[in-house]
Amino acid sequence: LRVPYSLPGYGDGEMVRRSDRFYREMDTRRSVRDISDQPVPIEVIENCLRTAGTAPSGAHKQPWTFVAISSPEVKLEVRHIIEEEERINYEKRMSEQWLKDLELIGTGWSKPYLTRAPYVIIVFKQQFAVTEEGEKKTHYYQEISASIATGFLLVALHNAGLVTVTTTPMNAGPRLRALLDRPVGEKVLVLLPVGHPEEDATVPDLRRKALGEIMVLKD
Amino acid sequence: LRVPYSLPGYGDGEMVRRSDRFYREMDTRRSVRDISDQPVPIEVIENCLRTAGTAPSGAHKQPWTFVAISSPEVKLEVRHIIEEEERINYEKRMSEQWLKDLELIGTGWSKPYLTRAPYVIIVFKQQFAVTEEGEKKTHYYQEISASIATGFLLVALHNAGLVTVTTTPMNAGPRLRALLDRPVGEKVLVLLPVGHPEEDATVPDLRRKALGEIMVLKD
Ligand SMILES: Cc1cc2nc3c(=O)[nH]c(=O)nc-3n(C[C@H](O)[C@H](O)[C@H](O)COP(=O)(O)O)c2cc1C
Ligand SMILES: Cc1cc2nc3c(=O)[nH]c(=O)nc-3n(C[C@H](O)[C@H](O)[C@H](O)COP(=O)(O)O)c2cc1C
Repeated sequence: LRVPYSLPGYGDGEMVRRSDRFYREMDTRRSVRDISDQPVPIEVIENCLRTAGTAPSGAHKQPWTFVAISSPEVKLEVRHIIEEEERINYEKRMSEQWLKDLELIGTGWSKPYLTRAPYVIIVFKQQFAVTEEGEKKTHYYQEISASIATGFLLVALHNAGLVTVTTTPMNAGPRLRALLDRPVGEKVLVLLPVGHPEEDATVPDLRRKALGEIMVLKD
Repeated sequence: LRVPYSLPGYGDGEMVRRSDRFYREMDTRRSVRDISDQPVPIEVIENCLRTAGTAPSGAHKQPWTFVAISSPEVKLEVRHIIEEEERINYEKRMSEQWLKDLELIGTGWSKPYLTRAPYVIIVFKQQFAVTEEGEKKTHYYQEISASIATGFLLVALHNAGLVTVTTTPMNAGPRLRALLDRPVGEKVLVLLPVGHPEEDATVPDLRRKALGEIMVLKD
């Protein structure tokens, strides 16, 4: 079954203006690790997750689950797991080059935002589903699809006026999956603490690549 | 070096309204394969790629390159490569289950949009960079980062009033990389034909999962 599809149909000038305005808005997004404990309405989190759910996915599998944690106890357990693994990551598992790359950003094993932020969202990618008959059903391109949905989520959070930092809790995935009772076919993709920035929040003074460094035109 | 960070600071009601409006806008996005040959200003493509470049990335590596093709000759070569591989994919490489999953969406090996769309954007992820001394510098989490940037790009294109279809040209990556002269550390992630929808464009009548199917709340 197919249905017609159309869009508002902006003129060229309007498209240029809209795309420029959207770029300027998105260019103010930064990863913020100084997150305040000011509450956030659950409706905002829900709308942002609904937006993530509008992302495309290989064969329309929608291979993602978003666990939103506001319980102080669960956030504390998550923090314990991650800080335990991060301590080992920083002390033993990361290469010298990697540690040098991270120095500029100023990260370390300690993650106070995990208990302070009103919400911690853990994004799971569904590698496969298990049918009622116990059969494994593969999801094609699930990492790309779930990451694109995460991109939609990050834009939605920024549009709502919230901050987060995209993190990949190295080696903590299996313990987080067990803690949150997710099925064996799911794997932690990223973890996002979400909230308002602290009043005195700071970010590293990083530069973004210019258009000429990321775009190649074949005309 | 660190710099202060702040946001406009919307009230709760405004955040709920903004996030709801953004969800409704994004929910009108669909993957469209009926793309018209109506021209699109290059400035719009540039602004959307600038927006993709505001995405976060592991250790701020920004491991992405966007090749935007408007040249009819290059688009034709891309189409030849992809259709040649897709014919084999559909006839031999895909499992029966996969083909069944794709039936609903109605795709096949033929890709007229590759020559008809005014732009074809190929997103490369940078797996590693080679320094002047010939050393390989790894990029951490490059597939996730480049896919998140692709998510930003898809939102930007939709916001500008354009359509695309996210495609993963299976087995065509190495030939596309060679055609476009990209370095050995780069790999094709996705290919996006971009333009206006045809006046009589149709899309498969797919359902998106409800919030309760993708969100788990731990409160
Ligand atoms: C990683 C990924 C790979 C995809 N590969 C293809 C593809 O090769 N060919 C195609 O026609 N569509 C492809 N799609 C588009 C999906 O079929 C489409 O997103 C899905 O059916 C949902 O439809 P919607 O995007 O209109 O919501 C892909 C999407 C993603 C995210
Ligand atoms: C896949 C991915 C993994 C990341 N992992 C971490 C992390 O574990 N810890 C952290 O503090 N930041 C992490 N970041 C955030 C990056 O450091 C940040 O995006 C980058 O420094 C650019 O800064 P910006 O987001 O403010 O533009 C990650 C980002 C991405 C996309």
